[in-house]
Amino acid sequence: MAVNHEPTLSKQTIYDGKIFNVELHEVELPDGNASKREVVKHPGAVAVVGMTDDGKIPLVRQFRKATEEFLLEIPAGKREAGEEAISTAVRELKEETGYTAGHLEEIAQLYTSPGFANELISIYIASDLQVGVPQTEADEFLTVEEWTLEEIRAGLNKQSFRDAKTAFAVQTLLARANS
Amino acid sequence: MAVNHEPTLSKQTIYDGKIFNVELHEVELPDGNASKREVVKHPGAVAVVGMTDDGKIPLVRQFRKATEEFLLEIPAGKREAGEEAISTAVRELKEETGYTAGHLEEIAQLYTSPGFANELISIYIASDLQVGVPQTEADEFLTVEEWTLEEIRAGLNKQSFRDAKTAFAVQTLLARANS
Repeated sequence: MAVNHEPTLSKQTIYDGKIFNVELHEVELPDGNASKREVVKHPGAVAVVGMTDDGKIPLVRQFRKATEEFLLEIPAGKREAGEEAISTAVRELKEETGYTAGHLEEIAQLYTSPGFANELISIYIASDLQVGVPQTEADEFLTVEEWTLEEIRAGLNKQSFRDAKTAFAVQTLLARANS
Repeated sequence: MAVNHEPTLSKQTIYDGKIFNVELHEVELPDGNASKREVVKHPGAVAVVGMTDDGKIPLVRQFRKATEEFLLEIPAGKREAGEEAISTAVRELKEETGYTAGHLEEIAQLYTSPGFANELISIYIASDLQVGVPQTEADEFLTVEEWTLEEIRAGLNKQSFRDAKTAFAVQTLLARANS
């Protein structure tokens, strides 16, 4: 499976943005024909699901312009240039919820939209959480909620989680709690 | 939570593509300041996790140009204009794996990358699968694999699933099998 089935014949950068770039690739298909592929290039992201010693999972509720609605998500953020994923995890958890994690374990690296974007998100489970003060960025407006595992189980059944990384992460937490 | 915290003051379409468009919005933040939001507009997608009567889950392995690697995914595809999500589910399952589903149940509607894209993916569990012949599109090159639940459980532990919708869907299937 090491063969690249769609080598790029030529490409152009359509958009050079702040969060992502857009590239248009002309590729060669396995049958020899040419085709176009539109690709969103993203630096990658990190998300953290944690549980406090008294069984609370910190979640953030924020308005997402792309979706035009408020979403309930685990703390997450974009990777900065040169930043290790685990450092982003520590930073975003602290900034968005105030918590500092004594232990972080990577449970998955997932492509969020492989049909058109290269965004890869590293998902961590955090434990040994210490309370602190959130330090959100100037253009971030969010509220922190703390849910129990039981509330999360009910929320999954009611489709309360509309963010893919969050649905996956809380489901993993539940599966571990049950095993 | 009905208040829109980031009303659009002005917007421009940066890119009008085949799979997605890109819009740049100038928005008003809750504190009154202006900010920019880059948004990928996508028509939405559908994905289907199914299990045959003899306990096999059809998966497709395909090269994804955006990620430059082969990914193992549940059958999925973009929604066509005016097409109901469940019709897309029936169509994509048939096209990519050949299976026809006697029953489809929506388990989630998830935003794949709410930080920058409006792609919403409807995920279905399919049952009563009938074997048929795949009918892939001209620029799709994929191979179908059939995994058992045990193989999927092991795969999740080994991080074999690098596609977010797939990781969520197979995890849901496992959770149901265990309950």
